[in-house]
Amino acid sequence: MTIHMNLGEDSYDIIVERGILERAGEHLELDRRVLIVTDSGVPSDYAEILAKQCRQGVICRLDQGEGSKSLDGFARLLETMLEQGFSRRDCVVAVGGGVVGDLSGFAASAYMRGIDFYNIPTTLLSQIDSSIGGKTAINFCGVKNVVGAFYQPKKVLVDPDLLATLPKRQISNGLAEAVKMSLTSDRELFELFESGDAESNIDTVIVRSLNVKKKVVEQDEREAGLRRVLNFGHTVGHGIESSEGMSELYHGECVALGMIPMCGERVRPRLIKVLKRYGLYRRLQYDWEKIALAAFHDKKADGDSVTVVTVDEVGSFEMKKMNCLDVIELAKNSLEGLVE
Amino acid sequence: MTIHMNLGEDSYDIIVERGILERAGEHLELDRRVLIVTDSGVPSDYAEILAKQCRQGVICRLDQGEGSKSLDGFARLLETMLEQGFSRRDCVVAVGGGVVGDLSGFAASAYMRGIDFYNIPTTLLSQIDSSIGGKTAINFCGVKNVVGAFYQPKKVLVDPDLLATLPKRQISNGLAEAVKMSLTSDRELFELFESGDAESNIDTVIVRSLNVKKKVVEQDEREAGLRRVLNFGHTVGHGIESSEGMSELYHGECVALGMIPMCGERVRPRLIKVLKRYGLYRRLQYDWEKIALAAFHDKKADGDSVTVVTVDEVGSFEMKKMNCLDVIELAKNSLEGLVE
Repeated sequence: MTIHMNLGEDSYDIIVERGILERAGEHLELDRRVLIVTDSGVPSDYAEILAKQCRQGVICRLDQGEGSKSLDGFARLLETMLEQGFSRRDCVVAVGGGVVGDLSGFAASAYMRGIDFYNIPTTLLSQIDSSIGGKTAINFCGVKNVVGAFYQPKKVLVDPDLLATLPKRQISNGLAEAVKMSLTSDRELFELFESGDAESNIDTVIVRSLNVKKKVVEQDEREAGLRRVLNFGHTVGHGIESSEGMSELYHGECVALGMIPMCGERVRPRLIKVLKRYGLYRRLQYDWEKIALAAFHDKKADGDSVTVVTVDEVGSFEMKKMNCLDVIELAKNSLEGLVE
Repeated sequence: MTIHMNLGEDSYDIIVERGILERAGEHLELDRRVLIVTDSGVPSDYAEILAKQCRQGVICRLDQGEGSKSLDGFARLLETMLEQGFSRRDCVVAVGGGVVGDLSGFAASAYMRGIDFYNIPTTLLSQIDSSIGGKTAINFCGVKNVVGAFYQPKKVLVDPDLLATLPKRQISNGLAEAVKMSLTSDRELFELFESGDAESNIDTVIVRSLNVKKKVVEQDEREAGLRRVLNFGHTVGHGIESSEGMSELYHGECVALGMIPMCGERVRPRLIKVLKRYGLYRRLQYDWEKIALAAFHDKKADGDSVTVVTVDEVGSFEMKKMNCLDVIELAKNSLEGLVE
């Protein structure tokens, strides 16, 4: 199935197809120098399967984890391309999750002011979310995604077969973002989660989530307004993620928690039930000062108030300006009170 | 005089006006956090005059020279913005030459994936050339401008009064790019150079050069084709510049030399006469191996051949594909044979 992202000159296709990694050369222009970026958490044969299809494939394997999404990681990719004599006509392919995609997309955007970038996401989270939308970034001085570029891939290949080797916790991590899309924009998808059949219908979850994101990104490529709906659960979620040192919890796990305060009374119990079912519910010792600092040192900060997305009815949302302190207070009240 | 750059959503104005620095606040939105980037070669009162017009101006003074246009310099600007709590709605203003503009433009493009950028160029070279066109960059691993972004300023203020304190060599450095524009695209401007009156008509030189560049950039924002005309003299020029360790010679001085091989028999003696008149003519000990390596490790390289711009008649140009080795051979023959 092909999902076409209509973004004018920056338009591109997302192709969702089992086994497409083996046939990547039919869809991507690989008859050139290709920097294949992957990490130690991705089965190494994925990058090798791709490299065999390139005229000159150079594999760069990062250490798994957010730590690689740094200025040093950025410099390492650029250096590798320079050493290998990459020209403006060569390209970068990400074969991995969000860390690999964000870092290599930013490197592709900056090398010679921009060379072609393809993404082959290998985690559920990146297949349904981070591989599309054109947001590339690195973490800097302890702040997530604070340095980067809006840079669209030339093509995204989504191969659900690659999920077979993914640990269960990583699947849940991805489902969190799908739950997010369903809560704000796709009631039927949320009901699929409630039915408990999400994992056996993973292709449906991927395609429906991609379609939600497609519609939002097409209307708001540069995150000026509507796109904030994708940040549902993310203000508090990012705060938790950063305060936890960017390592303990996964992104989706933090977003899962971040959504709870932003749901109305009727929706919250349904959400919690879904989160429990998919292993996304937990109680933490929160450090609210750290969370506040991290949440509002983020790109969503704007003076003393912040735009948050709330859901009072499954499948629809509202945007409101809220005082930063009130957001933290609300989060504190809803999350501290949770029981097993 | 206002020159409007028509670049769709990225359109902006260049305002050329004596004394405009003192009135910058009338043209730029300064009622926010403003990172003012300057360097030790720029009179310090320029940045201070601007800072007084800002709600919260933060001056960042770099060391003068290409050395600051580095990944470290990039990190330093980003760090300063983070420390000062810059949000997505704050901005960066460059007050300096090409180094300051290139570095701070790239930092503005990357901070939170892009915040507003203004440029107040203080050298002749940046007033007529590097401050417009949207090319931002840093040097990396010894290669000039190899990492960066296409990122348009929101406004450019050109104040010819700021040139009063500029050393003569820096004026010549800027004139070289104006000579370049005139050779390929403005016969009358070249005749002004031949008449020897360029320096006393500097406002005319600036405006005419900006108009040449405007027309080219509007037609080819991303440097896919026509924009290569602006690279006239730059393939060999960049090679010389890099081989000289990026410090001995100024950019314009290298471009001046780089143009000589690319002119036809009738134009070359006229060019040399003009270069001599404006202090841009010199004989060097060339290291052709280094020059070749640097010239073709550049963004203009593309496999084994390169597109060069040649001028057989003043005010017009041709583009040709040439083998890289032939370019070096041509440069060697024309430059080694020069006499005083």
